[in-house]
Amino acid sequence: MEKPSLPSGTRDFSPAVMQGRKYILSVMETIFVSHGFGAMETPALENLQTLQGKYGDEGDQLLFKVLNSGDFLSKVNEKTIQEKDSKKLATQIADRGLRYDLTVPLARFVVMNRDKITFPFKRYQIQPVWRADRPQRGRYREFWQCDIDVVGTQSVVSESELIEMVQEVFFRLDLRVNIRINHRGVLDSFLPILGSVENWNSFMIVIDKADKIGKEGVIRELEARGLGMAVSAWNWLWDSKSTTGNEAKIALAESAELIQGSALQKALTDTKQILNLLGSTANVVLDFTLARGLSYYTGMVFEIELNDGRLPEDFRLGSLGGGGRYDNLTEIFGLRDVSGVGVSFGLDRVFDSLEAGTLFPVFGFNQQSVLVCAMDDTCLQFAVNTARALRAAGLHCELYPGTPKLKKQLDYANSNSLGYAAIIGNVERDAQKVSFKNLHAGTQQLLSIAEIIQVLTLPK
Amino acid sequence: MEKPSLPSGTRDFSPAVMQGRKYILSVMETIFVSHGFGAMETPALENLQTLQGKYGDEGDQLLFKVLNSGDFLSKVNEKTIQEKDSKKLATQIADRGLRYDLTVPLARFVVMNRDKITFPFKRYQIQPVWRADRPQRGRYREFWQCDIDVVGTQSVVSESELIEMVQEVFFRLDLRVNIRINHRGVLDSFLPILGSVENWNSFMIVIDKADKIGKEGVIRELEARGLGMAVSAWNWLWDSKSTTGNEAKIALAESAELIQGSALQKALTDTKQILNLLGSTANVVLDFTLARGLSYYTGMVFEIELNDGRLPEDFRLGSLGGGGRYDNLTEIFGLRDVSGVGVSFGLDRVFDSLEAGTLFPVFGFNQQSVLVCAMDDTCLQFAVNTARALRAAGLHCELYPGTPKLKKQLDYANSNSLGYAAIIGNVERDAQKVSFKNLHAGTQQLLSIAEIIQVLTLPK
Repeated sequence: MEKPSLPSGTRDFSPAVMQGRKYILSVMETIFVSHGFGAMETPALENLQTLQGKYGDEGDQLLFKVLNSGDFLSKVNEKTIQEKDSKKLATQIADRGLRYDLTVPLARFVVMNRDKITFPFKRYQIQPVWRADRPQRGRYREFWQCDIDVVGTQSVVSESELIEMVQEVFFRLDLRVNIRINHRGVLDSFLPILGSVENWNSFMIVIDKADKIGKEGVIRELEARGLGMAVSAWNWLWDSKSTTGNEAKIALAESAELIQGSALQKALTDTKQILNLLGSTANVVLDFTLARGLSYYTGMVFEIELNDGRLPEDFRLGSLGGGGRYDNLTEIFGLRDVSGVGVSFGLDRVFDSLEAGTLFPVFGFNQQSVLVCAMDDTCLQFAVNTARALRAAGLHCELYPGTPKLKKQLDYANSNSLGYAAIIGNVERDAQKVSFKNLHAGTQQLLSIAEIIQVLTLPK
Repeated sequence: MEKPSLPSGTRDFSPAVMQGRKYILSVMETIFVSHGFGAMETPALENLQTLQGKYGDEGDQLLFKVLNSGDFLSKVNEKTIQEKDSKKLATQIADRGLRYDLTVPLARFVVMNRDKITFPFKRYQIQPVWRADRPQRGRYREFWQCDIDVVGTQSVVSESELIEMVQEVFFRLDLRVNIRINHRGVLDSFLPILGSVENWNSFMIVIDKADKIGKEGVIRELEARGLGMAVSAWNWLWDSKSTTGNEAKIALAESAELIQGSALQKALTDTKQILNLLGSTANVVLDFTLARGLSYYTGMVFEIELNDGRLPEDFRLGSLGGGGRYDNLTEIFGLRDVSGVGVSFGLDRVFDSLEAGTLFPVFGFNQQSVLVCAMDDTCLQFAVNTARALRAAGLHCELYPGTPKLKKQLDYANSNSLGYAAIIGNVERDAQKVSFKNLHAGTQQLLSIAEIIQVLTLPK
């Protein structure tokens, strides 16, 4: 008789928690649908061939692999078994794995269904993903992503619309965020200065540490790595960070002698157009140092950063999602020239943030609900009929199963925050009326079913 | 550059399919919530310890096992590796598996949260489950279950309510079903005749073949297996099948000299009470031969059987779900005396049935949607403002990303069945009006944004 437990990094969602999650999702879905995005889902199980090699070496190690069925060892060659090499054996005994994100499945779907899809293809997808990461606060092994993507157009109207949707989502959720944006073209412009892609990659890794080692620390490390030619670029990036306002930043980049070329020009033109199209740029912060991974993105990148002073101090900051444009979304599966742009929201972090700030609305649903209580079995039939009639009128109504003491039934109503009890004993049954109790106010009246419906459905 | 594919037995759900699935789920959820059931979710990943031994040997073989991370072979002892025994090795390299149903996770949840739950605990759960079964039409390896359960009461009011909810679900979905019911107590009453549990189990296996081998075939096989003492019981069951009406069946059982005892009495009392409490018993068919597996259930059992003459012939019949009462739900995890009763709907089969019968309603949503089309980039800003204003009025509105030829934009609107196009060229921009086209009727008017909102929001 084992004591049951959950795998590390996974969670149950009780009805109380589900109320909050469904609230967040309904806000998001309403906005997604109003912008013409359609729901899509893909299987949790994908062929490992689809997943491997798409997320870098680290990602490959974080994939959950599913053991083949039956006598999976029968197809493994003797040598692999003798070598005791887990990595090699895994490739022979596991053909499938669990979805790691929602972008690679989208790319696979687009390639497999390219003849049926009308482009631009706008879909949203809300599903769990799995990563064999070390669990810690706010980081789970099974967690939910909410992705919106536009596939098959290069128009920056999509970038602008996605940023606007992010703004709408957090406005309606009443959670304060900054949306950091950048265009990879700005960073790509440093390539001539660095001389090679390898140097450029090293440069990105070093400047990514600026938060920890400071401006001078970055310079020291650049020089130590033989990247002294990039110090001026770094100085420029550091200065751009302290420049206030998006327009001023664009002007700074346009006037910089240091960085030039068509990549920069396109980046700045795109960025200006996106900022112009956006209704409100109040919480959109242009940050030339934002890279969001080295290889994946090719155009605009976004990062949704929590910045809400009402939250407990250790919760105020942090990423709630991000995204960007990837010009070669489907190329990994052999279909070229399909550009995509998308944003991914982390449902669990949004939930945790709203909860930490007690920013969820009061879920009032139960307060309009009625518990029908039968005092004994001879009253059950009338109780069933009462519950049925109230539900037929569109009300939420529970019939307590069984006929224990009234106190027990009312305790249930209170525990579940139900607003009313419809109590039925012999007197009520014979009169075909109900003792209708307002559990909040403590008042009670003898009412007919029609009168109850009137009380509960008429505007207050 | 591999050609992407999906694992056998799994599927993508495109936005068109998702509309149907969301429709089914919204019907179900509305009914579940109106009866006071709360949403719950559990992780896809469960410890194998939680899952194994709960579904019989066959079930254990159908579990998808997830390979441990990292160097999983390092903890395996040499002997196991040399033996090349897949089953044994699996126990040492896989600690977790994928959820096989929603009932065992519910039991685990109840045990782990027993101090926080108010009983009776009424939850619904809509999530995928995984079985490494041979895929075939209507049977998938990743499929969705929708479960409703009441935990912690023995009252048959719950059985009655669950059956009523099944009726409501299929009434609203406009899908014709019969709900076959039985009480395990009736079958248990044959135990004294059979003499032992083993014989009783064999008896159940044989009579389960009646569809294929007929009444006489069952008798022959019973005698061949040395179960001649059960022939009279079988004759009685066969006769009961041809008896018309639930009341007549109960009367038949009450008068049967063959079967007696308290199990039968309780079974018949329960059954009568459930049928009495039910509002409509028109599609509730008492069938004393219904067993639904041998060991799991302890009281009432249900089976939802499709019976819809409007469907294609090979689709008319089949199970859309089932359930029953299990008195020892949580005992497998060491918590005794918690009775549960539940029904599980198979979402995929319900979807396939509605689709086969073209019984889905017309999803009219897109027909009220507007595509805003800008003729060139100088019109984009006004187009963005138009889309924003329409959405602010609660309308669904898409802005075509980019400014290709109008024909291409209108083709997109038609492919996605959008009802209207708001076309914006120089003339419209300068007039701050929109050429508003009804794509169904083909008519077009020059309207202000306020006028469009009026057209689309006023009752017809």
